[in-house]
Amino acid sequence: MPSAVVAPRHLGGHRTLTKRSASPPTSPTKTGLGQDQLRRNNLSALLTRVHLHGSISRASLTRGLGLNRSTIGGLAATLEDLGLVTERQPSAVRQSGRPSLVLEPRRDNVAVAVDIGVDRIVTALVALGGDVLHQRQRPHAPGEHDVTHVIESAAQMVEDLLVAEPAARCLGIGVSVPGAVRDSDGFVRFAPNLGWVDQPFTELFSERVGTRVFTGNDANLGVLAEHLRGAAVGHADVAYVNGSVGIGGGFLVGGVPLHGSRGYAGEVGHLLVDGSSTLQCRCGNVGCWETKVGENQLLVRAGRLPGGGPEGVAEVIAAAAAGEKRAADALDDVGQWIGAGLRAVINVFNPEVIVLGGSMAALWQARQDVVDKTLDRWTLMSPRSDVIIRASAFGLASPWRGAAEMVFAPVLADPASVLELSTPAQAGVG
Amino acid sequence: MPSAVVAPRHLGGHRTLTKRSASPPTSPTKTGLGQDQLRRNNLSALLTRVHLHGSISRASLTRGLGLNRSTIGGLAATLEDLGLVTERQPSAVRQSGRPSLVLEPRRDNVAVAVDIGVDRIVTALVALGGDVLHQRQRPHAPGEHDVTHVIESAAQMVEDLLVAEPAARCLGIGVSVPGAVRDSDGFVRFAPNLGWVDQPFTELFSERVGTRVFTGNDANLGVLAEHLRGAAVGHADVAYVNGSVGIGGGFLVGGVPLHGSRGYAGEVGHLLVDGSSTLQCRCGNVGCWETKVGENQLLVRAGRLPGGGPEGVAEVIAAAAAGEKRAADALDDVGQWIGAGLRAVINVFNPEVIVLGGSMAALWQARQDVVDKTLDRWTLMSPRSDVIIRASAFGLASPWRGAAEMVFAPVLADPASVLELSTPAQAGVG
Repeated sequence: MPSAVVAPRHLGGHRTLTKRSASPPTSPTKTGLGQDQLRRNNLSALLTRVHLHGSISRASLTRGLGLNRSTIGGLAATLEDLGLVTERQPSAVRQSGRPSLVLEPRRDNVAVAVDIGVDRIVTALVALGGDVLHQRQRPHAPGEHDVTHVIESAAQMVEDLLVAEPAARCLGIGVSVPGAVRDSDGFVRFAPNLGWVDQPFTELFSERVGTRVFTGNDANLGVLAEHLRGAAVGHADVAYVNGSVGIGGGFLVGGVPLHGSRGYAGEVGHLLVDGSSTLQCRCGNVGCWETKVGENQLLVRAGRLPGGGPEGVAEVIAAAAAGEKRAADALDDVGQWIGAGLRAVINVFNPEVIVLGGSMAALWQARQDVVDKTLDRWTLMSPRSDVIIRASAFGLASPWRGAAEMVFAPVLADPASVLELSTPAQAGVG
Repeated sequence: MPSAVVAPRHLGGHRTLTKRSASPPTSPTKTGLGQDQLRRNNLSALLTRVHLHGSISRASLTRGLGLNRSTIGGLAATLEDLGLVTERQPSAVRQSGRPSLVLEPRRDNVAVAVDIGVDRIVTALVALGGDVLHQRQRPHAPGEHDVTHVIESAAQMVEDLLVAEPAARCLGIGVSVPGAVRDSDGFVRFAPNLGWVDQPFTELFSERVGTRVFTGNDANLGVLAEHLRGAAVGHADVAYVNGSVGIGGGFLVGGVPLHGSRGYAGEVGHLLVDGSSTLQCRCGNVGCWETKVGENQLLVRAGRLPGGGPEGVAEVIAAAAAGEKRAADALDDVGQWIGAGLRAVINVFNPEVIVLGGSMAALWQARQDVVDKTLDRWTLMSPRSDVIIRASAFGLASPWRGAAEMVFAPVLADPASVLELSTPAQAGVG
């Protein structure tokens, strides 16, 4: 019977162990579901769609969620009572018959995003639904990378943002840090490019601003933003490689963020790519990928001074295009090493899409041929055959966009929990 | 208010993006749940516990699943009707009052497991609940690695097993292959150590045996077995590294198997660890991890002939213990390269536990000090601090144990689907 030859889809077949399964099919920890979990799941699913689509009709929610009209109506009413969505008549009725109400996120629910970079701090106020209401940027005072200065500077910038929206309900503050952040409490174990080791950053910052703070690794947050709203929408197996002074990696595996047992996973910048190198990396090792493709490596290789940042990289790319041999050679060299590192990423993760962030996007665009040649030569046939490589959709903004999503996450997972948040007056900083 | 300083657990806090979340909290694909999915989930959760625990009382199921007694009773009755479990009075009543019925898996539901190794084929008949009823092993005829010979040989071995249990309901055949297997249909893209490229193995084998066949990569199946019943029980972030002639990697990320976009992920054997090496790997590259720590590399380094397999490796370890310098030096050298590769695994995945399978377990046990020294020197501080390294619980059997679980998976995920399987008479091979 031919129909039985290959495992039928409806029986699972090969799909049973693919990325579509949220956990191993025989997950030992699987538990029963009651009516309250059922309702929480459905409230969460509805609010998540409204948050990601911005504005969506009851009719499309009914189709998208596979629930009937009356269930959708009840869920929408609950979210309206929670102050998370509003319902309105559609602006234009396209067909005859009763028009379907349109749900919209209430933009007076806001997340504060903070990006602590090596050279600057960026803060932004992001509304439920994803609109960026305000944004600020401030360079670090020279030599003031230390936690105390960073917290004070960031706290003042957060206050500036919140006073601009006095009526908003602040759902929390999300912070992106270029280092290893412990998932359980946001303790920063290791941020070499800031010079931080074992800093209770999240606790200190929470005490200073009086609001709940979520802290994450910049690349882990970057891949989340690209997955939800950027260059990796619709892809469940994603590698995000963020290149600046250092190299950070953020990964989605079957739609699940790769964090590891404590939140330190994804350190592809320290993969050994050149065993014969003698140049020491900030991690203490030699031959790390980041010592071959970091911004300063390119700048020095091209005869420039280190520390030029993304602008310095852009200048080298322009000079190479204008025919400067030393700049062109530096790009060729870095292009080959980008390929060498991406080769490992492809063989280990077999991603559907690789999103390049920070300076690495510009470097790849300038030397795509060199990168591709390295990959075609050295990557295992199978995973290479269908990987897509793209530049980040948000550029330098991916990490703080993801930081905002990290703040929305618990409310999206359990919308009723928003009631347990303090009111604007209490949540307001200072 | 101090209680609000650090993000409260019940609001998600830092947990929201950790491995405990089955998908990103703002998963764009999250859908609604209806009553039928609710019931399927609960049937699945109950059968999964019975399958993994072998025998479990209604009382502990009530506690473990968080469902009430009557719900458990109804679910148990349905599974009994499906012929998947039996209920019996407990053998010994320890306390007064009504004794709680005990559920057991019906062992006449069987999975056939097939492990296609480089030198031999192993087959086993595994019952629901995990008991191994029968096992067979047969070496490949010299030079008969090709798909046609392997399929015929394996099919005969499968027939031998099934005639031994004529009354059993065969849930399917699970096959472990040492190569890149496409998730969607079990097509084998690349199995270098068998010399297979682009082979429709699963389709051909299904046609030959007339039963549904599931095919997976050996290391991906190995980590599943170790997670469900072996050295990684209770761990959600697991790295399984299987070393023999080649090196295979199987990973669990937040409890989700790492398969990648097509099922080719986990190829850590081809990570570059020695840029100065000139020895070419079977993948066509040079400097791959597997060229430094594969069985034959150790044997040649120790002055033995390649092809000695696990027995050859054991002989070298014994000779080194007996004082043979050349053997000891070879082990020291391989031990350092094992450390170099595990360093990358730790920095990229930050696993809770690394399970070593095949010859690598023995090599690590023989040179644990050398491996640890390399890790302590070169691994990033954070992920290194709490990783556990262990030998596989099933040794060479992990891949076929996992292959059996791959067969049980769709039935555990949707127990009612077992009705759509053909009866023993029809499912019987031949």
